[in-house]
Amino acid sequence: MNIILFEEDEIQNNKVMLTDRRAKHLVKILKIKQDDYVRVGVIDGLKGEGKVLSCSRGYPFQVELAIELFEEKEMLPAIDFVIALPRPIMLKRIFSQAATLGVGALRIIHAARVEKSFWNATLLKKKEYRGHLLQGLEQAVATRVPEVSFHKNFKAFVEQWMDKRVADYSALLLAHPGSSNQLAEIIPETAERILVAVGPEGGWLDYEVEQFENLGFVHFALGERILKVDTAVVSLHGRLALLLE
Amino acid sequence: MNIILFEEDEIQNNKVMLTDRRAKHLVKILKIKQDDYVRVGVIDGLKGEGKVLSCSRGYPFQVELAIELFEEKEMLPAIDFVIALPRPIMLKRIFSQAATLGVGALRIIHAARVEKSFWNATLLKKKEYRGHLLQGLEQAVATRVPEVSFHKNFKAFVEQWMDKRVADYSALLLAHPGSSNQLAEIIPETAERILVAVGPEGGWLDYEVEQFENLGFVHFALGERILKVDTAVVSLHGRLALLLE
Repeated sequence: MNIILFEEDEIQNNKVMLTDRRAKHLVKILKIKQDDYVRVGVIDGLKGEGKVLSCSRGYPFQVELAIELFEEKEMLPAIDFVIALPRPIMLKRIFSQAATLGVGALRIIHAARVEKSFWNATLLKKKEYRGHLLQGLEQAVATRVPEVSFHKNFKAFVEQWMDKRVADYSALLLAHPGSSNQLAEIIPETAERILVAVGPEGGWLDYEVEQFENLGFVHFALGERILKVDTAVVSLHGRLALLLE
Repeated sequence: MNIILFEEDEIQNNKVMLTDRRAKHLVKILKIKQDDYVRVGVIDGLKGEGKVLSCSRGYPFQVELAIELFEEKEMLPAIDFVIALPRPIMLKRIFSQAATLGVGALRIIHAARVEKSFWNATLLKKKEYRGHLLQGLEQAVATRVPEVSFHKNFKAFVEQWMDKRVADYSALLLAHPGSSNQLAEIIPETAERILVAVGPEGGWLDYEVEQFENLGFVHFALGERILKVDTAVVSLHGRLALLLE
Protein backbone atom coordinates (compact mmCIF):
# COMPACT_ATOMS: atom_id res chain seq x y z
CA MET A 1 0.00 0.00 0.00
CA ASN A 2 2.00 2.95 -1.28
CA ILE A 3 -0.93 5.38 -1.08
CA ILE A 4 -4.00 5.49 1.17
CA LEU A 5 -7.11 5.70 -1.00
CA PHE A 6 -10.60 6.68 0.09
CA GLU A 7 -13.93 7.60 -1.41
CA GLU A 8 -14.82 11.26 -1.81
CA ASP A 9 -17.62 10.95 0.75
CA GLU A 10 -15.26 9.67 3.43
CA ILE A 11 -13.86 13.20 3.68
CA GLN A 12 -15.62 15.37 6.25
CA ASN A 13 -14.30 18.85 7.06
CA ASN A 14 -11.05 17.93 5.29
CA LYS A 15 -10.59 14.97 7.59
CA VAL A 16 -10.81 11.22 7.10
CA MET A 17 -11.28 8.70 9.90
CA LEU A 18 -9.92 5.24 9.04
CA THR A 19 -10.80 2.11 11.03
CA ASP A 20 -10.33 -0.74 8.52
CA ARG A 21 -7.39 -2.45 6.78
CA ARG A 22 -6.01 0.99 5.85
CA ALA A 23 -5.75 1.98 9.51
CA LYS A 24 -4.19 -1.40 10.30
CA HIS A 25 -1.61 -0.93 7.54
CA LEU A 26 -0.71 2.56 8.76
CA VAL A 27 -0.35 1.44 12.38
CA LYS A 28 1.17 -2.03 12.04
CA ILE A 29 3.25 -1.86 8.87
CA LEU A 30 4.14 1.80 8.45
CA LYS A 31 4.17 2.42 12.24
CA ILE A 32 2.98 6.00 11.79
CA LYS A 33 2.97 8.50 14.63
CA GLN A 34 1.06 11.71 15.22
CA ASP A 35 2.10 14.55 12.85
CA ASP A 36 3.53 12.12 10.27
CA TYR A 37 2.53 12.65 6.63
CA VAL A 38 1.28 9.91 4.32
CA ARG A 39 0.37 9.93 0.61
CA VAL A 40 -3.37 9.92 0.12
CA GLY A 41 -5.76 10.01 -2.81
CA VAL A 42 -9.45 10.18 -3.59
CA ILE A 43 -10.58 7.23 -5.68
CA ASP A 44 -10.98 8.59 -9.22
CA GLY A 45 -9.90 11.99 -7.90
CA LEU A 46 -6.98 14.07 -6.67
CA LYS A 47 -3.91 12.94 -4.79
CA GLY A 48 -2.22 14.70 -1.90
CA GLU A 49 -1.03 14.33 1.65
CA GLY A 50 -2.63 13.28 4.90
CA LYS A 51 -1.29 14.50 8.23
CA VAL A 52 -1.82 12.09 11.11
CA LEU A 53 -4.01 13.85 13.70
CA SER A 54 -4.35 10.84 15.94
CA CYS A 55 -3.76 7.10 15.78
CA SER A 56 -4.25 4.06 17.97
CA ARG A 57 -1.19 2.04 18.92
CA GLY A 58 -2.82 -1.30 18.25
CA TYR A 59 -6.20 -2.99 17.90
CA PRO A 60 -8.81 -1.56 17.42
CA PHE A 61 -7.00 0.31 14.67
CA GLN A 62 -8.01 3.91 14.19
CA VAL A 63 -6.27 6.72 12.35
CA GLU A 64 -7.52 10.23 11.73
CA LEU A 65 -5.94 12.17 8.87
CA ALA A 66 -6.13 15.85 7.91
CA ILE A 67 -6.31 15.83 4.13
CA GLU A 68 -4.75 18.21 1.65
CA LEU A 69 -5.30 17.41 -2.04
CA PHE A 70 -3.23 19.15 -4.71
CA GLU A 71 -2.11 16.62 -7.34
CA GLU A 72 -4.34 15.84 -10.32
CA LYS A 73 -5.29 12.27 -11.03
CA GLU A 74 -3.23 10.59 -13.73
CA MET A 75 -4.25 10.82 -17.38
CA LEU A 76 -6.42 8.19 -19.00
CA PRO A 77 -4.05 5.30 -19.84
CA ALA A 78 -3.65 4.73 -23.58
CA ILE A 79 -4.15 0.97 -23.46
CA ASP A 80 -7.45 -0.91 -23.11
CA PHE A 81 -7.93 -4.68 -23.07
CA VAL A 82 -10.57 -7.11 -24.28
CA ILE A 83 -10.05 -10.36 -22.36
CA ALA A 84 -11.87 -13.65 -22.79
CA LEU A 85 -13.06 -14.52 -19.27
CA PRO A 86 -10.33 -16.61 -17.58
CA ARG A 87 -10.68 -18.66 -14.39
CA PRO A 88 -11.40 -16.40 -11.40
CA ILE A 89 -8.00 -16.77 -9.70
CA MET A 90 -6.36 -15.52 -12.86
CA LEU A 91 -8.86 -12.72 -13.38
CA LYS A 92 -8.12 -11.54 -9.85
CA ARG A 93 -4.44 -11.16 -10.68
CA ILE A 94 -5.31 -9.47 -13.97
CA PHE A 95 -7.51 -6.91 -12.20
CA SER A 96 -4.84 -5.90 -9.71
CA GLN A 97 -1.95 -5.95 -12.17
CA ALA A 98 -3.91 -4.01 -14.82
CA ALA A 99 -4.74 -1.36 -12.23
CA THR A 100 -1.08 -1.20 -11.17
CA LEU A 101 0.23 -0.94 -14.73
CA GLY A 102 -2.42 1.54 -15.81
CA VAL A 103 -5.16 0.31 -18.13
CA GLY A 104 -8.07 2.45 -19.25
CA ALA A 105 -10.69 -0.26 -19.57
CA LEU A 106 -11.05 -4.03 -19.27
CA ARG A 107 -13.77 -5.61 -21.39
CA ILE A 108 -14.33 -9.16 -20.17
CA ILE A 109 -16.08 -11.20 -22.83
CA HIS A 110 -17.31 -14.68 -23.60
CA ALA A 111 -15.70 -16.85 -26.27
CA ALA A 112 -16.30 -20.42 -27.38
CA ARG A 113 -13.40 -21.79 -25.34
CA VAL A 114 -14.36 -19.96 -22.13
CA GLU A 115 -15.71 -22.39 -19.54
CA LYS A 116 -19.32 -21.38 -18.97
CA SER A 117 -19.12 -21.94 -15.20
CA PHE A 118 -16.63 -19.04 -14.93
CA TRP A 119 -19.58 -16.69 -15.46
CA ASN A 120 -20.95 -17.71 -12.05
CA ALA A 121 -17.86 -16.52 -10.17
CA THR A 122 -18.60 -14.09 -7.33
CA LEU A 123 -15.55 -12.13 -8.51
CA LEU A 124 -17.69 -10.73 -11.32
CA LYS A 125 -19.68 -8.71 -8.80
CA LYS A 126 -18.50 -5.15 -8.53
CA LYS A 127 -18.08 -5.18 -4.77
CA GLU A 128 -15.80 -8.21 -5.20
CA TYR A 129 -13.58 -7.14 -8.08
CA ARG A 130 -13.34 -3.48 -7.10
CA GLY A 131 -11.17 -4.41 -4.12
CA HIS A 132 -8.60 -5.98 -6.43
CA LEU A 133 -8.56 -2.92 -8.66
CA LEU A 134 -8.03 -0.67 -5.63
CA GLN A 135 -5.18 -2.86 -4.37
CA GLY A 136 -3.53 -2.44 -7.75
CA LEU A 137 -3.89 1.34 -7.53
CA GLU A 138 -2.56 1.38 -3.96
CA GLN A 139 0.54 -0.40 -5.25
CA ALA A 140 1.00 1.99 -8.19
CA VAL A 141 0.25 5.23 -6.28
CA ALA A 142 -2.63 5.96 -8.63
CA THR A 143 -6.30 6.86 -8.22
CA ARG A 144 -7.93 6.26 -11.59
CA VAL A 145 -9.95 3.03 -11.47
CA PRO A 146 -9.93 1.05 -14.75
CA GLU A 147 -13.39 0.80 -16.28
CA VAL A 148 -14.66 -2.78 -16.24
CA SER A 149 -17.52 -4.27 -18.24
CA PHE A 150 -18.72 -7.83 -18.80
CA HIS A 151 -20.11 -9.15 -22.07
CA LYS A 152 -21.54 -12.62 -21.82
CA ASN A 153 -22.78 -12.63 -25.43
CA PHE A 154 -19.90 -12.65 -27.91
CA LYS A 155 -22.07 -11.80 -30.90
CA ALA A 156 -23.68 -8.83 -29.17
CA PHE A 157 -20.25 -7.64 -28.04
CA VAL A 158 -18.71 -7.54 -31.51
CA GLU A 159 -21.77 -6.53 -33.51
CA GLN A 160 -23.29 -3.93 -31.23
CA TRP A 161 -21.04 -2.89 -28.37
CA MET A 162 -17.64 -2.96 -30.04
CA ASP A 163 -18.91 -1.78 -33.41
CA LYS A 164 -19.79 1.60 -31.87
CA ARG A 165 -16.39 2.01 -30.23
CA VAL A 166 -13.82 1.08 -32.88
CA ALA A 167 -13.48 4.74 -33.82
CA ASP A 168 -12.14 5.51 -30.33
CA TYR A 169 -8.90 3.65 -31.12
CA SER A 170 -5.98 4.25 -33.45
CA ALA A 171 -4.98 0.58 -33.21
CA LEU A 172 -7.08 -2.56 -32.75
CA LEU A 173 -4.97 -5.63 -32.03
CA LEU A 174 -5.79 -9.29 -31.54
CA ALA A 175 -3.35 -11.61 -29.80
CA HIS A 176 -3.64 -14.89 -31.71
CA PRO A 177 -1.13 -17.74 -31.41
CA GLY A 178 -1.81 -18.83 -35.00
CA SER A 179 -0.80 -15.46 -36.47
CA SER A 180 2.34 -14.96 -38.55
CA ASN A 181 2.46 -11.24 -37.74
CA GLN A 182 4.71 -9.82 -35.07
CA LEU A 183 3.55 -6.90 -32.96
CA ALA A 184 6.34 -4.55 -34.06
CA GLU A 185 5.29 -5.02 -37.71
CA ILE A 186 1.64 -4.14 -37.34
CA ILE A 187 1.55 -1.29 -34.87
CA PRO A 188 1.04 2.12 -36.49
CA GLU A 189 3.68 4.67 -35.52
CA THR A 190 1.07 7.24 -34.62
CA ALA A 191 -0.93 5.03 -32.25
CA GLU A 192 -2.67 7.02 -29.54
CA ARG A 193 -5.29 4.79 -27.99
CA ILE A 194 -4.78 1.04 -28.37
CA LEU A 195 -7.26 -1.77 -27.78
CA VAL A 196 -5.81 -5.27 -27.60
CA ALA A 197 -7.81 -8.48 -27.33
CA VAL A 198 -6.48 -11.57 -25.52
CA GLY A 199 -8.17 -14.94 -26.03
CA PRO A 200 -8.97 -17.84 -23.72
CA GLU A 201 -6.69 -20.79 -22.95
CA GLY A 202 -6.75 -22.73 -26.22
CA GLY A 203 -7.15 -19.55 -28.25
CA TRP A 204 -9.87 -17.97 -30.40
CA LEU A 205 -11.95 -19.93 -32.91
CA ASP A 206 -11.49 -19.00 -36.57
CA TYR A 207 -15.01 -17.58 -36.49
CA GLU A 208 -14.09 -15.31 -33.61
CA VAL A 209 -10.91 -14.11 -35.33
CA GLU A 210 -13.00 -13.27 -38.41
CA GLN A 211 -15.46 -11.29 -36.34
CA PHE A 212 -12.64 -9.23 -34.85
CA GLU A 213 -11.09 -8.78 -38.30
CA ASN A 214 -14.40 -7.46 -39.61
CA LEU A 215 -14.17 -4.75 -36.97
CA GLY A 216 -10.66 -3.80 -38.08
CA PHE A 217 -8.59 -5.81 -35.60
CA VAL A 218 -5.19 -7.00 -36.83
CA HIS A 219 -3.86 -10.24 -35.37
CA PHE A 220 -0.35 -10.94 -34.16
CA ALA A 221 1.45 -13.68 -32.22
CA LEU A 222 3.42 -13.13 -29.02
CA GLY A 223 5.92 -15.86 -29.88
CA GLU A 224 5.92 -19.63 -29.80
CA ARG A 225 5.64 -20.12 -26.07
CA ILE A 226 2.20 -20.64 -24.53
CA LEU A 227 1.60 -18.05 -21.84
CA LYS A 228 -0.98 -17.99 -19.07
CA VAL A 229 -3.48 -15.20 -19.62
CA ASP A 230 -2.22 -13.05 -16.73
CA THR A 231 1.38 -13.34 -17.92
CA ALA A 232 0.27 -12.50 -21.47
CA VAL A 233 -1.61 -9.38 -20.33
CA VAL A 234 1.37 -7.98 -18.39
CA SER A 235 3.88 -8.87 -21.11
CA LEU A 236 1.66 -7.32 -23.78
CA HIS A 237 1.15 -4.20 -21.70
CA GLY A 238 4.93 -3.88 -21.48
CA ARG A 239 5.34 -4.18 -25.24
CA LEU A 240 2.63 -1.64 -25.98
CA ALA A 241 3.89 0.77 -23.30
CA LEU A 242 7.30 0.69 -24.95
CA LEU A 243 5.77 1.47 -28.34
CA LEU A 244 3.95 4.42 -26.80
CA GLU A 245 7.03 5.80 -24.97
CA MET B 1 0.79 -28.70 -18.32
CA ASN B 2 1.13 -28.35 -22.09
CA ILE B 3 4.04 -30.76 -22.34
CA ILE B 4 5.10 -33.73 -20.20
CA LEU B 5 8.70 -33.23 -19.09
CA PHE B 6 11.03 -35.85 -17.66
CA GLU B 7 14.69 -36.32 -16.85
CA GLU B 8 16.92 -38.09 -19.36
CA ASP B 9 17.44 -41.02 -16.96
CA GLU B 10 13.70 -41.67 -16.69
CA ILE B 11 13.82 -43.04 -20.25
CA GLN B 12 14.49 -46.77 -20.41
CA ASN B 13 14.33 -48.60 -23.75
CA ASN B 14 12.59 -45.56 -25.24
CA LYS B 15 9.86 -45.80 -22.64
CA VAL B 16 8.91 -43.70 -19.64
CA MET B 17 6.75 -44.89 -16.74
CA LEU B 18 4.95 -42.07 -14.94
CA THR B 19 3.34 -42.48 -11.51
CA ASP B 20 3.35 -38.96 -10.07
CA ARG B 21 1.52 -35.66 -10.76
CA ARG B 22 2.29 -36.04 -14.46
CA ALA B 23 0.40 -39.34 -14.59
CA LYS B 24 -2.45 -37.79 -12.61
CA HIS B 25 -2.63 -34.86 -15.04
CA LEU B 26 -2.70 -37.16 -18.08
CA VAL B 27 -5.41 -39.39 -16.59
CA LYS B 28 -7.61 -36.91 -14.75
CA ILE B 29 -7.31 -33.68 -16.75
CA LEU B 30 -6.38 -34.79 -20.27
CA LYS B 31 -8.29 -38.08 -19.94
CA ILE B 32 -5.84 -39.86 -22.22
CA LYS B 33 -6.52 -43.35 -23.59
CA GLN B 34 -4.26 -46.06 -24.95
CA ASP B 35 -2.64 -45.14 -28.32
CA ASP B 36 -3.14 -41.39 -27.73
CA TYR B 37 -0.18 -39.11 -28.39
CA VAL B 38 1.03 -36.41 -26.01
CA ARG B 39 3.81 -33.82 -26.31
CA VAL B 40 6.87 -34.79 -24.31
CA GLY B 41 10.31 -33.38 -23.68
CA VAL B 42 13.54 -34.18 -21.92
CA ILE B 43 14.48 -31.49 -19.38
CA ASP B 44 17.26 -29.47 -21.02
CA GLY B 45 16.95 -31.75 -24.04
CA LEU B 46 14.88 -32.68 -27.07
CA LYS B 47 11.11 -32.52 -27.47
CA GLY B 48 8.90 -35.04 -29.21
CA GLU B 49 5.87 -37.26 -28.82
CA GLY B 50 4.85 -39.93 -26.37
CA LYS B 51 2.44 -42.68 -27.36
CA VAL B 52 0.33 -44.02 -24.53
CA LEU B 53 1.14 -47.73 -24.13
CA SER B 54 -0.97 -48.20 -21.03
CA CYS B 55 -2.71 -46.07 -18.44
CA SER B 56 -4.70 -46.52 -15.26
CA ARG B 57 -8.24 -45.19 -15.16
CA GLY B 58 -7.89 -43.67 -11.70
CA TYR B 59 -5.81 -43.84 -8.54
CA PRO B 60 -3.07 -45.10 -8.32
CA PHE B 61 -2.17 -43.13 -11.44
CA GLN B 62 0.15 -44.83 -13.84
CA VAL B 63 0.94 -44.05 -17.46
CA GLU B 64 3.51 -45.70 -19.69
CA LEU B 65 4.66 -43.78 -22.75
CA ALA B 66 6.70 -44.83 -25.79
CA ILE B 67 8.95 -41.86 -26.49
CA GLU B 68 10.07 -40.46 -29.80
CA LEU B 69 12.26 -37.35 -29.66
CA PHE B 70 12.86 -35.29 -32.79
CA GLU B 71 12.58 -31.58 -31.99
CA GLU B 72 15.62 -29.65 -30.77
CA LYS B 73 15.43 -27.72 -27.56
CA GLU B 74 14.79 -24.02 -27.97
CA MET B 75 17.66 -21.58 -28.41
CA LEU B 76 19.21 -19.82 -25.43
CA PRO B 77 16.87 -16.90 -24.64
CA ALA B 78 18.48 -13.50 -25.26
CA ILE B 79 17.40 -11.97 -21.94
CA ASP B 80 18.95 -12.56 -18.52
CA PHE B 81 17.90 -10.95 -15.22
CA VAL B 82 19.63 -9.79 -12.08
CA ILE B 83 16.98 -9.57 -9.37
CA ALA B 84 17.35 -8.31 -5.81
CA LEU B 85 15.94 -11.13 -3.67
CA PRO B 86 12.20 -10.47 -3.17
CA ARG B 87 9.90 -12.15 -0.65
CA PRO B 88 9.58 -15.89 -1.38
CA ILE B 89 5.99 -15.82 -2.63
CA MET B 90 7.01 -13.29 -5.24
CA LEU B 91 10.18 -15.15 -6.18
CA LYS B 92 8.07 -18.26 -6.76
CA ARG B 93 5.97 -16.42 -9.33
CA ILE B 94 9.08 -14.93 -10.90
CA PHE B 95 10.65 -18.38 -11.30
CA SER B 96 7.65 -19.88 -13.06
CA GLN B 97 6.88 -16.83 -15.19
CA ALA B 98 10.53 -16.36 -16.21
CA ALA B 99 10.65 -20.02 -17.29
CA THR B 100 7.42 -19.58 -19.23
CA LEU B 101 8.54 -16.40 -20.97
CA GLY B 102 12.02 -17.70 -21.69
CA VAL B 103 14.89 -16.28 -19.69
CA GLY B 104 18.48 -17.48 -20.00
CA ALA B 105 19.59 -16.87 -16.43
CA LEU B 106 18.31 -15.45 -13.16
CA ARG B 107 20.93 -13.98 -10.83
CA ILE B 108 19.35 -13.47 -7.44
CA ILE B 109 21.39 -11.00 -5.41
CA HIS B 110 21.45 -9.17 -2.11
CA ALA B 111 20.97 -5.41 -1.87
CA ALA B 112 20.73 -3.04 1.06
CA ARG B 113 16.93 -2.94 0.96
CA VAL B 114 16.50 -6.72 0.76
CA GLU B 115 15.16 -8.12 4.02
CA LYS B 116 17.87 -10.38 5.38
CA SER B 117 15.40 -13.04 6.54
CA PHE B 118 14.47 -13.74 2.90
CA TRP B 119 17.81 -15.52 2.56
CA ASN B 120 16.54 -18.25 4.89
CA ALA B 121 13.62 -19.21 2.64
CA THR B 122 13.46 -22.89 1.73
CA LEU B 123 12.59 -21.77 -1.80
CA LEU B 124 16.27 -20.99 -2.34
CA LYS B 125 17.08 -24.71 -2.27
CA LYS B 126 17.36 -26.21 -5.72
CA LYS B 127 14.92 -29.03 -5.09
CA GLU B 128 12.36 -26.39 -4.05
CA TYR B 129 12.72 -23.78 -6.81
CA ARG B 130 13.36 -26.24 -9.62
CA GLY B 131 9.73 -27.37 -9.44
CA HIS B 132 8.55 -23.83 -10.16
CA LEU B 133 10.91 -23.51 -13.10
CA LEU B 134 9.64 -26.81 -14.52
CA GLN B 135 6.01 -25.72 -14.11
CA GLY B 136 6.84 -22.61 -16.11
CA LEU B 137 8.39 -24.74 -18.86
CA GLU B 138 5.40 -27.12 -18.87
CA GLN B 139 3.18 -24.09 -19.48
CA ALA B 140 5.37 -22.73 -22.28
CA VAL B 141 6.04 -26.09 -24.03
CA ALA B 142 9.76 -25.64 -23.50
CA THR B 143 12.58 -27.74 -22.07
CA ARG B 144 15.47 -25.34 -21.41
CA VAL B 145 15.70 -24.63 -17.67
CA PRO B 146 16.81 -21.07 -16.83
CA GLU B 147 20.14 -21.00 -15.02
CA VAL B 148 19.73 -19.78 -11.44
CA SER B 149 22.42 -18.51 -9.10
CA PHE B 150 22.33 -16.80 -5.71
CA HIS B 151 24.71 -14.07 -4.61
CA LYS B 152 24.36 -13.12 -0.98
CA ASN B 153 27.31 -10.72 -1.08
CA PHE B 154 26.56 -7.66 -3.23
CA LYS B 155 30.17 -6.49 -3.35
CA ALA B 156 31.47 -9.88 -4.42
CA PHE B 157 28.73 -10.09 -7.04
CA VAL B 158 29.58 -6.81 -8.76
CA GLU B 159 33.34 -6.84 -8.29
CA GLN B 160 34.13 -10.46 -9.00
CA TRP B 161 31.25 -12.42 -10.45
CA MET B 162 29.65 -9.79 -12.67
CA ASP B 163 32.90 -8.13 -13.65
CA LYS B 164 33.94 -11.31 -15.51
CA ARG B 165 30.66 -11.56 -17.39
CA VAL B 166 29.89 -8.07 -18.68
CA ALA B 167 31.51 -8.95 -22.00
CA ASP B 168 28.83 -11.61 -22.59
CA TYR B 169 26.21 -8.91 -23.11
CA SER B 170 25.57 -6.26 -25.72
CA ALA B 171 23.35 -4.33 -23.32
CA LEU B 172 23.50 -3.95 -19.54
CA LEU B 173 20.39 -2.28 -18.13
CA LEU B 174 19.38 -1.21 -14.65
CA ALA B 175 15.73 -0.58 -13.80
CA HIS B 176 15.84 2.41 -11.44
CA PRO B 177 12.77 4.45 -10.51
CA GLY B 178 14.88 7.60 -10.07
CA SER B 179 16.19 7.52 -13.64
CA SER B 180 15.24 10.09 -16.25
CA ASN B 181 16.06 7.70 -19.12
CA GLN B 182 13.42 5.71 -20.93
CA LEU B 183 14.16 2.20 -22.11
CA ALA B 184 13.57 2.97 -25.80
CA GLU B 185 16.21 5.72 -25.66
CA ILE B 186 19.05 3.67 -24.25
CA ILE B 187 18.77 0.28 -25.89
CA PRO B 188 21.28 -0.25 -28.71
CA GLU B 189 19.69 -1.29 -32.00
CA THR B 190 22.05 -4.19 -32.38
CA ALA B 191 21.42 -5.74 -28.97
CA GLU B 192 21.93 -9.49 -28.94
CA ARG B 193 22.17 -10.62 -25.34
CA ILE B 194 20.66 -8.33 -22.73
CA LEU B 195 21.11 -8.37 -18.98
CA VAL B 196 18.65 -6.30 -16.97
CA ALA B 197 18.79 -5.69 -13.22
CA VAL B 198 15.67 -5.16 -11.11
CA GLY B 199 15.95 -3.74 -7.60
CA PRO B 200 14.20 -4.48 -4.32
CA GLU B 201 10.99 -2.86 -3.08
CA GLY B 202 12.17 0.64 -2.25
CA GLY B 203 14.78 0.61 -5.00
CA TRP B 204 18.57 0.56 -5.19
CA LEU B 205 20.79 2.74 -3.02
CA ASP B 206 22.86 5.38 -4.83
CA TYR B 207 25.95 3.35 -3.95
CA GLU B 208 24.47 0.29 -5.64
CA VAL B 209 23.53 2.26 -8.75
CA GLU B 210 27.11 3.54 -8.94
CA GLN B 211 28.51 0.03 -8.66
CA PHE B 212 26.34 -1.11 -11.56
CA GLU B 213 27.30 1.98 -13.56
CA ASN B 214 30.97 1.20 -13.04
CA LEU B 215 30.32 -2.14 -14.73
CA GLY B 216 28.70 -0.41 -17.72
CA PHE B 217 25.03 -0.69 -16.73
CA VAL B 218 22.77 2.12 -17.97
CA HIS B 219 19.77 3.00 -15.83
CA PHE B 220 16.23 3.67 -16.98
CA ALA B 221 12.81 4.10 -15.38
CA LEU B 222 9.77 2.01 -16.20
CA GLY B 223 7.39 4.92 -15.66
CA GLU B 224 5.97 6.68 -12.63
CA ARG B 225 3.89 3.84 -11.25
CA ILE B 226 5.38 1.61 -8.56
CA LEU B 227 5.25 -2.02 -9.71
CA LYS B 228 5.61 -5.20 -7.69
CA VAL B 229 8.80 -7.01 -8.61
CA ASP B 230 7.04 -9.88 -10.39
CA THR B 231 4.95 -7.47 -12.46
CA ALA B 232 8.07 -5.44 -13.28
CA VAL B 233 9.94 -8.55 -14.44
CA VAL B 234 7.18 -9.68 -16.82
CA SER B 235 6.53 -6.16 -18.12
CA LEU B 236 10.24 -5.60 -18.70
CA HIS B 237 10.59 -8.93 -20.43
CA GLY B 238 7.77 -7.88 -22.76
CA ARG B 239 9.49 -4.60 -23.60
CA LEU B 240 12.85 -6.24 -24.25
CA ALA B 241 11.29 -9.05 -26.29
CA LEU B 242 9.67 -6.45 -28.51
CA LEU B 243 12.99 -4.68 -29.02
CA LEU B 244 14.56 -8.01 -30.01
CA GLU B 245 11.76 -9.01 -32.41
